[in-house]
Amino acid sequence: MKPWTDTTVVGKPLPRVDAYERVSGAAVFTVDVAFPDMLHLAILRCPHAHALVKTLDAEVARTMPGVRAVLTHADPEANMVVPYPSWIRGGPPMRLLDPHCRYAGEEVAAVAAETPEQAREALRAVVVEYEERSFVLDAAEAMKPGAPAVHEQGNVVRLPETIQRGDVAAGFRDADAVVEGTYETSCEIHATMEPLSSVARWDGDRLTVWESSQGVFDHQEYLAAALGLPLSSVRVVCKYMGGGFGSKAELSKHTLIAVLLARRTGRPVRSVLTREESFLCAGNRPPHTMTLKTGVTKDGVLRAIDLEGVGAVGAYADEATGGFLASQLYACPNVRIRETEVFVNAGKARAMRAPGFPQCAWALEQTIDALAEKVGIDPVEVRLRNLPTSFQWTPPVPYSSMGLGQCLVEGARAFGWKEARERPKASGPVLRGVGVAACMWPNPGGPPATAILKLFADGSLNLTTGVSDIGTGAKTVLAMTAAEELGLPLDRIQIEWADTATTPYAQVSGGSRTVINNTPAVRAAAAEIRRQLLEIAAEEMKKPSDGLLLKDGHVVPFDEPRRALPIPQLKGLQQRRVLIAVGNRRPNPPKLGLPFGAHFAEVEIDTRTGEIRVTRFLAAHDSGRVMNRLTYENQVFGGVTMGIGFALTESRVLDRQTGRVLNANLHDYAVPTALDVPAEMTCLPIDPHDTECNATGTKGLGEPATVPTAAAVANAVYHATGIRVTRSPITPMQMLALLAARRDRA
Amino acid sequence: MKPWTDTTVVGKPLPRVDAYERVSGAAVFTVDVAFPDMLHLAILRCPHAHALVKTLDAEVARTMPGVRAVLTHADPEANMVVPYPSWIRGGPPMRLLDPHCRYAGEEVAAVAAETPEQAREALRAVVVEYEERSFVLDAAEAMKPGAPAVHEQGNVVRLPETIQRGDVAAGFRDADAVVEGTYETSCEIHATMEPLSSVARWDGDRLTVWESSQGVFDHQEYLAAALGLPLSSVRVVCKYMGGGFGSKAELSKHTLIAVLLARRTGRPVRSVLTREESFLCAGNRPPHTMTLKTGVTKDGVLRAIDLEGVGAVGAYADEATGGFLASQLYACPNVRIRETEVFVNAGKARAMRAPGFPQCAWALEQTIDALAEKVGIDPVEVRLRNLPTSFQWTPPVPYSSMGLGQCLVEGARAFGWKEARERPKASGPVLRGVGVAACMWPNPGGPPATAILKLFADGSLNLTTGVSDIGTGAKTVLAMTAAEELGLPLDRIQIEWADTATTPYAQVSGGSRTVINNTPAVRAAAAEIRRQLLEIAAEEMKKPSDGLLLKDGHVVPFDEPRRALPIPQLKGLQQRRVLIAVGNRRPNPPKLGLPFGAHFAEVEIDTRTGEIRVTRFLAAHDSGRVMNRLTYENQVFGGVTMGIGFALTESRVLDRQTGRVLNANLHDYAVPTALDVPAEMTCLPIDPHDTECNATGTKGLGEPATVPTAAAVANAVYHATGIRVTRSPITPMQMLALLAARRDRA
Repeated sequence: MKPWTDTTVVGKPLPRVDAYERVSGAAVFTVDVAFPDMLHLAILRCPHAHALVKTLDAEVARTMPGVRAVLTHADPEANMVVPYPSWIRGGPPMRLLDPHCRYAGEEVAAVAAETPEQAREALRAVVVEYEERSFVLDAAEAMKPGAPAVHEQGNVVRLPETIQRGDVAAGFRDADAVVEGTYETSCEIHATMEPLSSVARWDGDRLTVWESSQGVFDHQEYLAAALGLPLSSVRVVCKYMGGGFGSKAELSKHTLIAVLLARRTGRPVRSVLTREESFLCAGNRPPHTMTLKTGVTKDGVLRAIDLEGVGAVGAYADEATGGFLASQLYACPNVRIRETEVFVNAGKARAMRAPGFPQCAWALEQTIDALAEKVGIDPVEVRLRNLPTSFQWTPPVPYSSMGLGQCLVEGARAFGWKEARERPKASGPVLRGVGVAACMWPNPGGPPATAILKLFADGSLNLTTGVSDIGTGAKTVLAMTAAEELGLPLDRIQIEWADTATTPYAQVSGGSRTVINNTPAVRAAAAEIRRQLLEIAAEEMKKPSDGLLLKDGHVVPFDEPRRALPIPQLKGLQQRRVLIAVGNRRPNPPKLGLPFGAHFAEVEIDTRTGEIRVTRFLAAHDSGRVMNRLTYENQVFGGVTMGIGFALTESRVLDRQTGRVLNANLHDYAVPTALDVPAEMTCLPIDPHDTECNATGTKGLGEPATVPTAAAVANAVYHATGIRVTRSPITPMQMLALLAARRDRA
Repeated sequence: MKPWTDTTVVGKPLPRVDAYERVSGAAVFTVDVAFPDMLHLAILRCPHAHALVKTLDAEVARTMPGVRAVLTHADPEANMVVPYPSWIRGGPPMRLLDPHCRYAGEEVAAVAAETPEQAREALRAVVVEYEERSFVLDAAEAMKPGAPAVHEQGNVVRLPETIQRGDVAAGFRDADAVVEGTYETSCEIHATMEPLSSVARWDGDRLTVWESSQGVFDHQEYLAAALGLPLSSVRVVCKYMGGGFGSKAELSKHTLIAVLLARRTGRPVRSVLTREESFLCAGNRPPHTMTLKTGVTKDGVLRAIDLEGVGAVGAYADEATGGFLASQLYACPNVRIRETEVFVNAGKARAMRAPGFPQCAWALEQTIDALAEKVGIDPVEVRLRNLPTSFQWTPPVPYSSMGLGQCLVEGARAFGWKEARERPKASGPVLRGVGVAACMWPNPGGPPATAILKLFADGSLNLTTGVSDIGTGAKTVLAMTAAEELGLPLDRIQIEWADTATTPYAQVSGGSRTVINNTPAVRAAAAEIRRQLLEIAAEEMKKPSDGLLLKDGHVVPFDEPRRALPIPQLKGLQQRRVLIAVGNRRPNPPKLGLPFGAHFAEVEIDTRTGEIRVTRFLAAHDSGRVMNRLTYENQVFGGVTMGIGFALTESRVLDRQTGRVLNANLHDYAVPTALDVPAEMTCLPIDPHDTECNATGTKGLGEPATVPTAAAVANAVYHATGIRVTRSPITPMQMLALLAARRDRA
């Protein structure tokens, strides 16, 4: 397939194909899936950070009005092992209802009843006697000898993960300037608009689960594995979703409990987590501590990077590393990254929008800022001096395109970086500053990814994809891909998606892979439909098929455009009724097409209150081709907003006395609102016209869009105040304390 | 693809894959589709056989409790033209609500309300003033000059359809014996267990209709055409069905009304016809009168067939011809068939299990019986002397196989024909006789037919087909096809079916084409999955792919069966997660593979009551390969039972005074019950091992199974009594009258 050149649909700022459904309330989310005889689930959760269930009496609960089933650890199936997500290797078994509770919020018992209220009411009648144990919340504490053991194996999840390149010691010897610092990031919650939810129904020995799921085929595999069923007997469906950010990419216990109680009662069971439960057990961005030592020459060229990191995965295994970013964002011959993952008595982490990368950017990009200052070079310029020329692997892998330089140069120009940098910083009690930070994301996507297209006899099209549209507009971009390739108006295309029984395979919507994996698959299917259609047309129009093009629902001969024929007039199509094609994502070329980006932030700090406002923001991204200017901007602005929350407000607070989450709600846990984002936000797409990376020239956007934001804000705070804030979030209280400390030192 | 030889799954008497769902009540029929905010439809029907609506006042109805919308002919959309089924060419427009009502039961107005009871109650408040017109119920009357005109165009639907071959006059000159007679068949009702039902829901400008439909893609096309929507915007879904027999192959007005009121109210609307309504407006087997003149040589060789037929289509156009059977069942050089279709003031006909053929067999097979007697040759023998050697077309088309001779010979032997024929006929007041009749069916199937298979990483399979399983077990046979080709246990296969949005194209389940079209499509898809799988296996097992076979979920090397590898252990499959293949039905070869059959009936007639019991029955069918011995038998016994109803009990009765249906219920309209079928029923499959007709060697069974039954019963009645009953059904009253008339003559 030739790269697209002049596109007519792709790239346009088109509203989402499901915009009407989303704004009218017609969209069916999992919580809207209803059956007349459906039961509702409520789950009893351990109130202690670490405890053993000594006795549990559910006899009264069983007799409460409306109660149809109760599950406790005394039931054999409660001992079932919940599968970890596929990217987690190893980890102690997660029992469905484990009498050994490892965090405040862990599942202890469950009730299925006629109404949600009856189910919750019955929970209050379950009498549990706990034996409390000492607990540990902090990774550093957990690693100390004698710390309370979250698991028998000890608190270190596995041996440190290490990346090693060149000779770090030699690199530091070569360096003219060295900067070292320890950076801490707090625990964030995904806080999706839509809570986690599931509906489970059995038909004989076949299970259907409606799930707010980023990857229905992943959920199918987890459920089949947990239940010992053939994959074909497990159907997972996800219609509309209100966000995932990684929290809906793995199997949740409440889903499996709903499945078991649906089987036991012979009735569908719906489970919808409350907002509070979502904060306790639905994952989080694990807190990190990274000690980073870097060295540059006096010309600002990196010679060595040494990173030592610790991440707290919570009560069960997960990924809590991010140092990989430090090994790849800039060219550096000598790198050592060591990261340790630690259990603590808190809710398990889950992948969250660029797992580990915002944390690492927080450390790395502040360090680069400090290095730039130390050698007296502009922060943009110092980054330009360290652009990577290849993916730094053994052997190095060339990039098919690499737009970081352009992001920095064009971003700085459009932001007015130079002018802003030189503007006076103080204006009465308010300080102003600007900061920059960069990012990359190491996932080029790849097979398997498939799509099925059906062209109907009137030239309208059905697109079937396994992709969950987690809120990003993926469906719209996939439809645009088909529209582009087939010269069809977008409103002639309807999409079916995310159903393991009726749609073709797609990987989980995560890792910024949805567009880069699936638009090429759709394009391949569309190209095959086009081939079939032009073969029919060539015969009927007496033209060679390569002399025909598809435009506005017509077959148009290059040499006689006036003889354009509407698609429905092709007799061969009428005879065949429907043309069908399967498209497969091809493997990547030997080169790598990865996304890069640079964020520019301007902040104002009120030194009286410690409040920080981000007043201006520009995000320049090389994510390859812009498929849809509008959804592209949505992704970037969403990522930036999330990054601002990471920088300034969001932090799960654990009570040191009890280990409970103190702010498990959207009032106390401060997600940025429309009033918290800069009035002036600019999205600057940098398209390197990558014709090699894949068939649509796309490179992924969802995650890079949030990776450098917080670091850019922190660098702007430093520029404004001269204070390097190493611990996120930069709350007014912390800011005031740091300002006061500086005054004290002065 | 090589023809299957030793099959392991195909041919076995396996229970249906959805047996559990069907017997447990878990199966979701259209009437079970429910939405929380769903409305219910009720339809006001004209009580007169022919009338004009002069005034209609629905103002009170609109204010009745629960009423949300009312549709009358005053609404512009009520003027919408309802599409005829695709096989009906021409015909006067069918308006959705036509103020000119042409039969008692025609739609006049409709109400959508919160409950079905409220909707029906509101109908009673609709005040209609009719102007009654004279009407005509009988085809012969309708053809007379001055008869009441059902349509302005007159009562003849179109010019007579004529088949002409050779020289009929010359043929009769060559004949040694000529038999002539006029045969009449009554109007039958499909009487499906499940009534016609629809649920319509709009999401924005997209329509989903759950429909008890024999062909979801046909319904999609009718709805898109009626509403002016792109096909991709119309989704039609049919889950479980309780029979169709042709009545659910076209668009019904109630469906379209539900669609319009769903659009108007913004709420889903469900419409379920009552049993009575099903008798009035859901189609019927049109009554026929056929005058048949045939001539044979003294050796029993057919020289000429001349058939003149008239069929009453009802108030709107439909097919009411069946003479084609007479032109093809036996070799005959000189044939003339002329058939006229006539409008009458009665509910419109619809295709019904072998449209026209049981009617024609009633005439033809009794005539052959009479000819046999006239030349003194056994009825089986006379048929054997006239076996067709090819499809009698210009030029003749050779048969790929033709098992009629074998059906007659082996059927007669198994039935004990000779002995039964010679046994004494009388036993007190009870007379006994045996009769034979034969059939063929002229539909070889063909493309388009498609299937999609997905093989999951654990070796389980998902089969996606557009086929409606109308109750025949089609899903089971399709799954067995995939199981056979892929060496998979049947319980590892799950099926998704009959959804225009998520399944590939299939033709309407009718015309005995479901198995012959779709098993080859499934086999083609399975062969492609097999190819992909063996390609992976060949590489990993270091064997040539043609040295490997698939068995019991394993890849087995021919030469080293002990090295058999479970499918899930193939790494390439694990990497790809899912293998997908589309299978297409290939065009037929230049030869024709058509089904033939012969039925043998034994009857007992109580001369005191006129009651006839079919005591023994044998059905021998060449329908090609037996895909499933159990569902094959189900089809045959069902067809025979239906034929017994046709022969003895079933007849829609129109009141001569009012034109209303007098027996619009299952009490007065006598469908055979378990007590009415012979205790001894034998199904004798004759498999000619047709390796040419299509990839599975199947030739269609649904319709031939009912074509000759009634004629065989009538011939047995003749054998027992010497009375040739020309008018169906042979009710006790008719039998008594005929016996009495003979006594009077004697």
